[in-house]
Amino acid sequence: MAKIAIMGHGVVGSGVAELLRKNSTNISQRIGQSIEISKILDLREFNNLPYLDLFTKNFDDILKDDEISVVVETIGGLDPSYEFTKSLLKSGKSVVSSNKELVAQKGDELLSIARENHVNYLFEASVGGGVPIIRPIYSCLAANKIEYICGILNGTTNFIITKMLEDGLSFEEALALAKDKGYAEKDPTDDINGSDSNRKICILASLAYGTHIYPHEVCQSGIECIELADVDFARSIGCVIKLIGKARRLENGKISIMVCPAFVSNSSKLASVGGVYNAILVKGDAVGEVLFVGQGAGKMPTASAVVADIINIVRAEKTFISQSWKPSNGSIVQAHEQYESRFYLRLKARDAKEAREFVLKNYKSPVFLSRKDQPADEIALTTGYMLESEIKDLTNLFSGHRIKQLSKLIILD
Amino acid sequence: MAKIAIMGHGVVGSGVAELLRKNSTNISQRIGQSIEISKILDLREFNNLPYLDLFTKNFDDILKDDEISVVVETIGGLDPSYEFTKSLLKSGKSVVSSNKELVAQKGDELLSIARENHVNYLFEASVGGGVPIIRPIYSCLAANKIEYICGILNGTTNFIITKMLEDGLSFEEALALAKDKGYAEKDPTDDINGSDSNRKICILASLAYGTHIYPHEVCQSGIECIELADVDFARSIGCVIKLIGKARRLENGKISIMVCPAFVSNSSKLASVGGVYNAILVKGDAVGEVLFVGQGAGKMPTASAVVADIINIVRAEKTFISQSWKPSNGSIVQAHEQYESRFYLRLKARDAKEAREFVLKNYKSPVFLSRKDQPADEIALTTGYMLESEIKDLTNLFSGHRIKQLSKLIILD
Repeated sequence: MAKIAIMGHGVVGSGVAELLRKNSTNISQRIGQSIEISKILDLREFNNLPYLDLFTKNFDDILKDDEISVVVETIGGLDPSYEFTKSLLKSGKSVVSSNKELVAQKGDELLSIARENHVNYLFEASVGGGVPIIRPIYSCLAANKIEYICGILNGTTNFIITKMLEDGLSFEEALALAKDKGYAEKDPTDDINGSDSNRKICILASLAYGTHIYPHEVCQSGIECIELADVDFARSIGCVIKLIGKARRLENGKISIMVCPAFVSNSSKLASVGGVYNAILVKGDAVGEVLFVGQGAGKMPTASAVVADIINIVRAEKTFISQSWKPSNGSIVQAHEQYESRFYLRLKARDAKEAREFVLKNYKSPVFLSRKDQPADEIALTTGYMLESEIKDLTNLFSGHRIKQLSKLIILD
Repeated sequence: MAKIAIMGHGVVGSGVAELLRKNSTNISQRIGQSIEISKILDLREFNNLPYLDLFTKNFDDILKDDEISVVVETIGGLDPSYEFTKSLLKSGKSVVSSNKELVAQKGDELLSIARENHVNYLFEASVGGGVPIIRPIYSCLAANKIEYICGILNGTTNFIITKMLEDGLSFEEALALAKDKGYAEKDPTDDINGSDSNRKICILASLAYGTHIYPHEVCQSGIECIELADVDFARSIGCVIKLIGKARRLENGKISIMVCPAFVSNSSKLASVGGVYNAILVKGDAVGEVLFVGQGAGKMPTASAVVADIINIVRAEKTFISQSWKPSNGSIVQAHEQYESRFYLRLKARDAKEAREFVLKNYKSPVFLSRKDQPADEIALTTGYMLESEIKDLTNLFSGHRIKQLSKLIILD
């Protein structure tokens, strides 16, 4: 019998407890032994749970229990998760985490502590919820050089954009609906502004390229700026809008990494992935493109990934099975300014004719778009390949031409 | 350094050799040691290869080489792969296989021999080519009760059907094109008649349900009967045709398992997967639906899966990491006659009025379909839920009513 503890009895932590109890017979049959929850750490008071006797408010009850070999961390955030995780790994316990913020900020250090202490630190649930992605990249695509990883990594924003596209809701209406349905948290800032997707693409890129990449190194923008006008312009050229996280190895050996709303062609495998689903496309030099799709969040899908990690640690006996990567060397990530893409821009111009001339003169291969009921002062265009810095410089030039940039999206290749 | 051997230098075997050489630096960095090919077994003569010195025609050169710890089997078929694999496992060598026929027929026995000898028998490449599917089901979805597995498991037939749908080619024309492009073998019988998909759904079902399921237990039909008329009727109700393999756990605890061409709604995640791609949908009780998509065949995608298995065995040191399942108990599979589904039927009737009356009287909830330029003697319909045996009994009743059944497909839920 393997004894485990759970830290944090929120949505994910309670899901883990529920799933371990519900499928205990199946799990025991599969791994040849049972998994028993010994302790649950949470500072809050709970009622009406069949396992109230397991609760403790004292971390030491877990740390000092020598029978507990695996600890689940679903507290979230850095404090106290970071210190707790370090202490547990150093004391010879394996840790399973759904905490993307902690992995994205401290993954290299925690993986290295795990390796030193010959225990495992696994975090399949930190990206894609229940979608198997970290272990498949680490295990199943291990023979490949990863050319790129590109995906819809946040279910909340994908739900919002899908509702704007399919039902014509405004951004605010779609966000309200997402909150109603429990898909968006009370404070959805990290989802909307791209921070959540940023952490996830950092974890995937660190894994794929073997070197820790920090969220602050990522070129990030969110979906706050998206309006129905942008959805219409996207549709006019056979595209949908998705919040995309993408990491790509460049010919110069650097990694280009960004989180940004994007025009995605309807012919792309990502285009039809709607609602709260996540989809991750991985291109390997041998395997070609592989796509993983599933529910990117939610109590039971996320618990499914956490419990899978527990099972794999128990199965592995004393073997070190953690993925791992090296600390950041500070120079693997391509500078934001050098980010190259085709862009979509929507501008508001006091003098449309003057603005069009400005566009034709300054942007590479501009193509003007049009939509029904387009206001006279609205100009939308796609560009050829340009640097992020070139786009920025042109925006600074705008003022003299009485132009305001309303939206800037990339066009996904 | 880990020393390996490759048996069979055909498409997959040569791909494995090529990939191990091409990405050797990357692979060594990832696993902390290099993988070296010591021997290649093939009875044929080869020229112009940089590693001709590795070839042998004598199996004993591999079996008796104590330095070789992992052997790749890409010979295919049962003879001599079955005896070779048994001997290798018994001699303490792990075996990695892309041989779906062998796994589908003898998987339980070989897995049990592997376990007894504390070595590994892995076969990620046997299903889905490069698409990660066996390890994700075994590892990442291990906390789930699998409700069903449903997928497009054969790239050749999917290419043919896609060409019929998109370019209006006849079955024969599309098959000829598939051969031209190297997607179909000289003798594509096993692809076309569903045998290849059958082996794959057996492997996935055995893994998901823990008991060996044999190909002869599967309700199988192929795509030989599909005509452009069927493609048109499918389109008339918002569907495409796909050759589907599906295994599902029934409420009575039995497994319903089949390979059959099917009407798939355009709203299904499987509908848009065209060409030589494979797509596998897995529904777990916790995770919900998860979809895996990628190239289901081809030299390098398949080699990617084989080399991943090698890497995982080397990484696992001496730990037993194989998936495993119990021998068949002969009673887990639901009888074919009890297979229940909605059906699509296309009939040729000497007297259309008489045939329509027969249909209305005998089939459950029949809905007649129509298409452009429909011949007067052609009747097409969908039914409500009926048993396979009921459909068969009605076909036997046909003769008196001068009706001939031209196509029978299932309608995928």
